Amino acid sequence: MGVDRFDDIRNAALALFTEQGYRATTMADIGTAVGMRAPSLYKHVASKQDLLARIMSSTMEALLAGYRGAVATTDDPAERLRRATEVHVRYHARHRLEAFVGNREIGSLVEPSRTHVLDLRADYERGFRDLVAAGVDAGVFHVDSVRLASYAVLDLGMGVSAWYREDGELSEDAVVWQYSRFALRLVGYQGPGYQGVGYQG
Amino acid sequence: MGVDRFDDIRNAALALFTEQGYRATTMADIGTAVGMRAPSLYKHVASKQDLLARIMSSTMEALLAGYRGAVATTDDPAERLRRATEVHVRYHARHRLEAFVGNREIGSLVEPSRTHVLDLRADYERGFRDLVAAGVDAGVFHVDSVRLASYAVLDLGMGVSAWYREDGELSEDAVVWQYSRFALRLVGYQGPGYQGVGYQG
Repeated sequence: MGVDRFDDIRNAALALFTEQGYRATTMADIGTAVGMRAPSLYKHVASKQDLLARIMSSTMEALLAGYRGAVATTDDPAERLRRATEVHVRYHARHRLEAFVGNREIGSLVEPSRTHVLDLRADYERGFRDLVAAGVDAGVFHVDSVRLASYAVLDLGMGVSAWYREDGELSEDAVVWQYSRFALRLVGYQGPGYQGVGYQG
Repeated sequence: MGVDRFDDIRNAALALFTEQGYRATTMADIGTAVGMRAPSLYKHVASKQDLLARIMSSTMEALLAGYRGAVATTDDPAERLRRATEVHVRYHARHRLEAFVGNREIGSLVEPSRTHVLDLRADYERGFRDLVAAGVDAGVFHVDSVRLASYAVLDLGMGVSAWYREDGELSEDAVVWQYSRFALRLVGYQGPGYQGVGYQG
């Protein structure tokens, strides 16, 4: 029950941070949104800053866990990038507010949370750089700058979080599969599945 | 001089909207940033909403003008997409605050400005869809969904505005040229320049 209540508070905070920004949101707004008075609210969270830090670090931890799960399932460089991109894009389609607030409010975090989240983000970016570099080393990817290519792949996820809607004409799977194919094209991969329209799991 | 003063006010508002969000920013904050009292400030702008609307519509108008300039210079579908992407990415590298606020504050616009900006944005997206569709029709691009491919190209620009820094290790031109090459790869283009490392203008 305590956990559920925290989830309610977290979700209300996430919605308010998205809608009106971290700075303009007060703990009183969050309390009103979940129907709790300050004494109950502060049993679950220490402060508005605590909420933001937990939202942003859990977002990066979820992305990193997804990445690790994706690359653990194959040794093939192209399949690794495909699967890691699928997880990345799917996360951004499903967690649009987290992506938005994560991008928007990094400057609102105070230390040591800010460094912690930036470190997690650096780990995540390095993960994609490593995947692109491995494909280049294996001779299956062809890029001028490994860094830029990995940024471009990551950009695709951020973009999805900005425009994707469940009630839109494109299903989540369609977006995930086509975007991971875009990622493989982008790094110059021309192996199996490159020109195919479907997904081979 | 009036124009210069308006630019100062606009730039101060843009910085404040970026830093603390539209809602948390007051006209008094903007006045303080440019060293003007309310009576002078209101000679140049009607309201905070007026400032936001002018920032967001001028951003979309600049992108649309860039697009039209790019596609007017060639009839070749691949070159059109390359040039339009170059302009798109360069704008996002140079106007990061405009891109950020444009993405962040669409919900803060009131009518009729909101519809006006959304219409301009729809025009811009349609422009890229038309470019991708033209390449598919000409048999030089190969995509499952024209819409998704054009979204992915546009996502690359948004991404650049989130991470690009003038003092970073990558020059603006390097980003612009490589990202436009990514765009051509993404749509499955395999013509001249596809595997080349350089840029042929």
